[in-house]
This record gives sequence, structure tokens and C-alpha cells, in this order.
Amino acid sequence: MADEENAYSFTTAATRHIKLECLPEGGMKLWRGERLPEVTLAYESWGELNEKADNAIIIFTGLSPSAHAASSPQDPSPGWWEYMIGPGKAVDTNRFFVVCANSLGGCYGSTGPSSINPATGSSYDADFPDVTVEDIASSGYYLMRELGVEKLHAAVGSSMGGMSSIAYAMQYPGEIRYLVSISAAAQALPLTIALRSLQREIIRSDPDWNNGHYSDEKRPLSGMSLARKLGLVSYRAADEWNSKFDRSRLPPEKLTGQRFEREFEIENYLEYNAQKFIHSFDPNSYLYLSRAMDWFDIAEHGDSIAGGMAKIDVEKALVVGVTTDILFPLRQQREIADVMRSTGTDVDYVEIDSVNGHDAFLIDDEHFSPVVKKFLDESVS
Amino acid sequence: MADEENAYSFTTAATRHIKLECLPEGGMKLWRGERLPEVTLAYESWGELNEKADNAIIIFTGLSPSAHAASSPQDPSPGWWEYMIGPGKAVDTNRFFVVCANSLGGCYGSTGPSSINPATGSSYDADFPDVTVEDIASSGYYLMRELGVEKLHAAVGSSMGGMSSIAYAMQYPGEIRYLVSISAAAQALPLTIALRSLQREIIRSDPDWNNGHYSDEKRPLSGMSLARKLGLVSYRAADEWNSKFDRSRLPPEKLTGQRFEREFEIENYLEYNAQKFIHSFDPNSYLYLSRAMDWFDIAEHGDSIAGGMAKIDVEKALVVGVTTDILFPLRQQREIADVMRSTGTDVDYVEIDSVNGHDAFLIDDEHFSPVVKKFLDESVS
Repeated sequence: MADEENAYSFTTAATRHIKLECLPEGGMKLWRGERLPEVTLAYESWGELNEKADNAIIIFTGLSPSAHAASSPQDPSPGWWEYMIGPGKAVDTNRFFVVCANSLGGCYGSTGPSSINPATGSSYDADFPDVTVEDIASSGYYLMRELGVEKLHAAVGSSMGGMSSIAYAMQYPGEIRYLVSISAAAQALPLTIALRSLQREIIRSDPDWNNGHYSDEKRPLSGMSLARKLGLVSYRAADEWNSKFDRSRLPPEKLTGQRFEREFEIENYLEYNAQKFIHSFDPNSYLYLSRAMDWFDIAEHGDSIAGGMAKIDVEKALVVGVTTDILFPLRQQREIADVMRSTGTDVDYVEIDSVNGHDAFLIDDEHFSPVVKKFLDESVS
Repeated sequence: MADEENAYSFTTAATRHIKLECLPEGGMKLWRGERLPEVTLAYESWGELNEKADNAIIIFTGLSPSAHAASSPQDPSPGWWEYMIGPGKAVDTNRFFVVCANSLGGCYGSTGPSSINPATGSSYDADFPDVTVEDIASSGYYLMRELGVEKLHAAVGSSMGGMSSIAYAMQYPGEIRYLVSISAAAQALPLTIALRSLQREIIRSDPDWNNGHYSDEKRPLSGMSLARKLGLVSYRAADEWNSKFDRSRLPPEKLTGQRFEREFEIENYLEYNAQKFIHSFDPNSYLYLSRAMDWFDIAEHGDSIAGGMAKIDVEKALVVGVTTDILFPLRQQREIADVMRSTGTDVDYVEIDSVNGHDAFLIDDEHFSPVVKKFLDESVS
């Protein structure tokens, strides 16, 4: 995919774009029934694939990250999981061939709503087909085939990426040896469906959304900002904000005297972070990937969650949860671990006590690195 | 205030409107410095004031309720706290003279943004002065004076109403004997400020808000609906929704086939409840009262929360919290009780184990009635 086709894709020297040639005839059949005639994935990789092609790890991302999970000689800027991936790190690129793709449906170079529909020559926009977590996993499967990998050493994912890792293991039993699921869920439950549904409705209520057919010049930035703020509220934990912001107020010179203006530092924090986000993320990608998470339900792969989990055939899984995560709470991590065990999977289950809520995996190097490192080190010992 | 002055005020035979004649000269001076020249409160009452005028209880409401807290012969429709207030009930109207007013700043008959500004002959709209929890408490104080009450037997409030009860006790030390605070807070903390700030920004982002000067015909209903949905998400607890909705989907005949349409029952529940609300509540009232809660900080009444609490002079206080309340969490209830005790107030502190989150006080008759009944019964024994 060329840059001019997609306003959001950024290409660094480290980002490669690959058109999946190994798709079945007619294109990629999606989990909910629609079809994508062509799929391009933007990905980065670190380390080298060994001769036996048995040292590959795929990293699945949450909703918004790009393929740039870590720095590399080609692109020294820090990636979104910089502390986790690199030479000698938990995901050790001296040992493993590590691949991270921008999600199918995303906007950082992989085929998504802002990509050109080959049938029309215009961007898909809201005519992009329904994409699911299963499809993100499948696109990762095809990507690894293109890269010469038959069987993965491991799939590692956090948040939506954890769902994708599990979906990979269920859909391709025996084709992955180790599975890492961090702050994920076996199925979306009402609170998270409600929060995401509300975020989507906020975006769709912005007149500039224009039923999904907006121009680059007039995107629903107001709706995106509000939706992102709601996301930020759900990603963090109350206590961290209490200690970080308490009731701190903006300095008087930043106040305008307008009624209802931002007055507390927490309001400013949300505004700052929302503004950082909205200019780089495609609203339609947000809608599609958000909905994908609502739909995710392992029970669709069997008669029940256990029925779906029973399809998994890995040597071992690592399941990690965070005490203060309100979006993907500990009980859902325990459920993943318990049901995996009940269906015959060997599981390491770790609860991490962090104040950083759902975002902890992006922040807490000191908690997460040792856990993931131990698991992956043992996988090759 | 006559009905025609306020599109939202509903008058039943039980609702009375009283213009506060006992205000200081120049009107009511508000906590943040502005002034209201005239204040009318809509209220209802139950039971009779006794000869000594020492059996009066004021009920302070949360953000949205009207004065119609309970049914009466004049208006037999159930009130918003029907289980709590009535003959023989926890707030026993055989024994007490019970008064509930629509909050100052509200839209159900009390002076608020949709009221006529006597200086202009038009509604205040977004030119209404900043109103605070302290002012709501003070307006209740003036109301009770108008009704012939010098010293209250008790102030009872939940959520914002609990804050108002505490503000009453701090501002009028010795003029209230018993204090009941349910699911309140000594000060607003970042998570709740963030959620409310976001709700307000959602309303203000609706083009129909029109900087607060909208017409009855064109109100920001879309923004109100989204803000209300966010409120509903925060008022309830995840586990209750899990057991009530799980991943239930709408029946096929209710689906339109449109992308991103409501598909899960939880989405329909939010839509239904938002629609019920938005046609009866004034968006500007929502903004003002929401901001009032952000501003509430007992520490403004002293050098610290303890400094503010030290002003309280009651015979006893009841502080109640709910295990699953994420908006006004238990730790904030414990804080109220602990600091009150440390500053010399006798406190009964009760934690209620309920699945209903912040809304529990509206629902859990079987949990709340015995606690409040015991406290008030003992107050007259």
C-alpha cells in the first residue's frame, strides 16, 4: 500500500508493507461472513528467523498501536512496547524473530477502512466489512506464512492483542507452541460493551463523521476527542489519579473565565492526551476495532468458553492480569487461566499488583518484564 | 414560579413553590461569589410539623431528582425514594415533618438556569451564576426558615444530597441534630471529576447546546443522551450487568442491518433509559449541578477536610457506603466517618454489600431501610 493511499499510514525505514499472496482464492473470508479481496499488512520485525524457522514470535496489539512496537537500527524511535522487546529483553530479539503488525482494520498501513477498495478505487470508509478479533489473528497467520514461518514459537498480546493471541491458538491448533495473554478477556461483558458502544456513538454523533464518509479535511475530531477521553478514563485506576492529580487546579493564567472551562489538572490531562491521539488515528478504524472487541466471545468457537478453549493445543500458556484493571478485570484473567487448565492447557497465571489499571502493561516494566522473560526463557530451555 | 416560566417544572397537587423571602438584602450570596436576587424552591412535604417545631427532616437529592421523593394523598404516584419515606417507614412521616426540595439550580420548579432572570425577563440559561453544593444546602436552610423551622431534627441525603447534608451541618453548626450521608464524598476526586467533565463536554459539543442558549424546540438531546448513558455506566456495577445482561442480543426483528447499530441488550438498556431522561431534564441544569459536585471540597471550609469537618456540631451522624460503588467508593465513605470521628462527631458507619453500585440507595430497600430506620428511631428514643 502506498502512502498516498492512506492518510494515516506512516512509513519509517523499519515498517514494511506486505500484500498477502497466500490468501485463499477470492480473498480473505472474514469471521462474520464478508470477504476482503486483498489484504496488505504493515509490519516491523526484530531479530532473525533461524534456519529451522522455529523461533518466530508474533506480537498482537491493542486497539490503537502501530507495528512500531520497538526501536530498531532502521527506526531508533521508541516503540509502544519498547521495554518489552529488544536484545536481552523479555522478548529477546537476540534469540527470537519478532514480528508485530498493525492490526487488520487499523490505520497505520494495514488494510482498513481508510484503505482503497480495489473494487471502487475509493477508500472503503464505512463500507469496510465487519472485522473481528478472529480476522486479526488470521491475518497474522497469513503474514507469518508469507515470512516463511509454518509454526510459531509464541503469540504474545495484551488487551485486544491478548484476545487475538487466544484466537490464533484456537483457530490454528498445534501451530503455535507458547501463548501469552495479558489483560485480555474470554468474552466481552456488558460494562466494556457499554463503554465502547458509547465511544462509538459519540464519534457517530459528530456531524463530521458523515455516516463514515468524511474527508481528510473534515474528520470527526470532536467526537474522537470525547471518545478518547472516555477511553483514557477506563484505562486507568482511580487511585493512581488520586495520587497524581488529586484536586490540583490549572494555574490562573490558563483560565479564560468562561463558564464550564477546564479548571482541574485532570481535565487538562485528558484534553492533552486526546489531542495527541485524534490527529493520528482514523475514526472509522476506531469504530471497527472497538466493535471487534465487543463481538469477541470464545464461546463462539465451541458451545461454551470451555468448548472454545478446548481447541487450544499449545505447550504452555501465560495469563497475566492486573489488580486495578476495571476494563479487563482480574476475574476475567482468572477465568481464562482456569478454563484453559480445565481443558488441558498448562498455564502460568500471574496477577500483577499495579496502580496503573488496564494500561499497566504499557508502563510497568519492572512488573511485566520479569514475568514474560521467565516464561519465554523457560520455553527454550 | 408559574409553570409557564419553566418548561421542565411539573406541578402536582403535592408540589408547592415558595419564594424565599428571608434571604439577605440583595438576594442570596453564593459560595463562589455571584448573587441570585430571587430564589424560588419547589418542595413537597410529608407529615406535620409539631408544636415545638423540632421534628423536621430535610431530604437533599442527588443531581437529577425532583421534590417528589414520595407519594402523598395529594400525589399518589411513587416518588424517587418511595421505599424510604412514609408512614411507618425508615423516614417515618407519622413522626417527622419531612421536606424535600428540588435542588437550587435544578429544573423541576426551583430557581435554575431555565428560570426567568428578573433582571432581563428571559431565562438565565448559561448566564445563571455558579451554584455549589454549599448553596443548595443554604437554600434548604432558608426554605426551612420559611416553613417555621429553626433547628432541624435531621438532614438526610444521598450522592450529591449527602454532600449537601454535610455542607448544611458545616455551614449551620448546632442547627441540625442528626446527619445522614449516604454514598457521598468529602471532596470530588479526579476520576469523578473526569467523568463529569466529559459528560459536560459531550453536552456542550452538541451544536444544539448553542453555548447554553437553546430553545425549547431545539435542545441538545443527542449530547444529553450520550451524557446520561455515561452516567448510567458509572452508577452501576459490572457484576450486576453481567448477571442481568451477560451477552444477550436484541432479537433479529429489532436489528436494521446497519453497521454499528445497537446489537446487545446492554446497548438497548442504555438507549431506553437515556431517552426516558433527556426529555424531562434541562441540559443547563445538568451542567451546573454536575460542576457543583466537582467543586465540592470540605477542605474549603477549613485548612483541610478535618478542618471543615470540625465545624460540624451534631448529636450523631450516620455514614453509609456501598461495596460496589465506583463513583463514590467505600474508601471515601470511610474517610467521612473517620474524619468526623477524629473531629469529635459520634458516627454510625455502615457498609452495605450490594451489587447495585452507586444507585443502590435508590433500589435496595431491604439494605437501606433498616439502617436508616434504626438511626432515626434511636434519635428520638
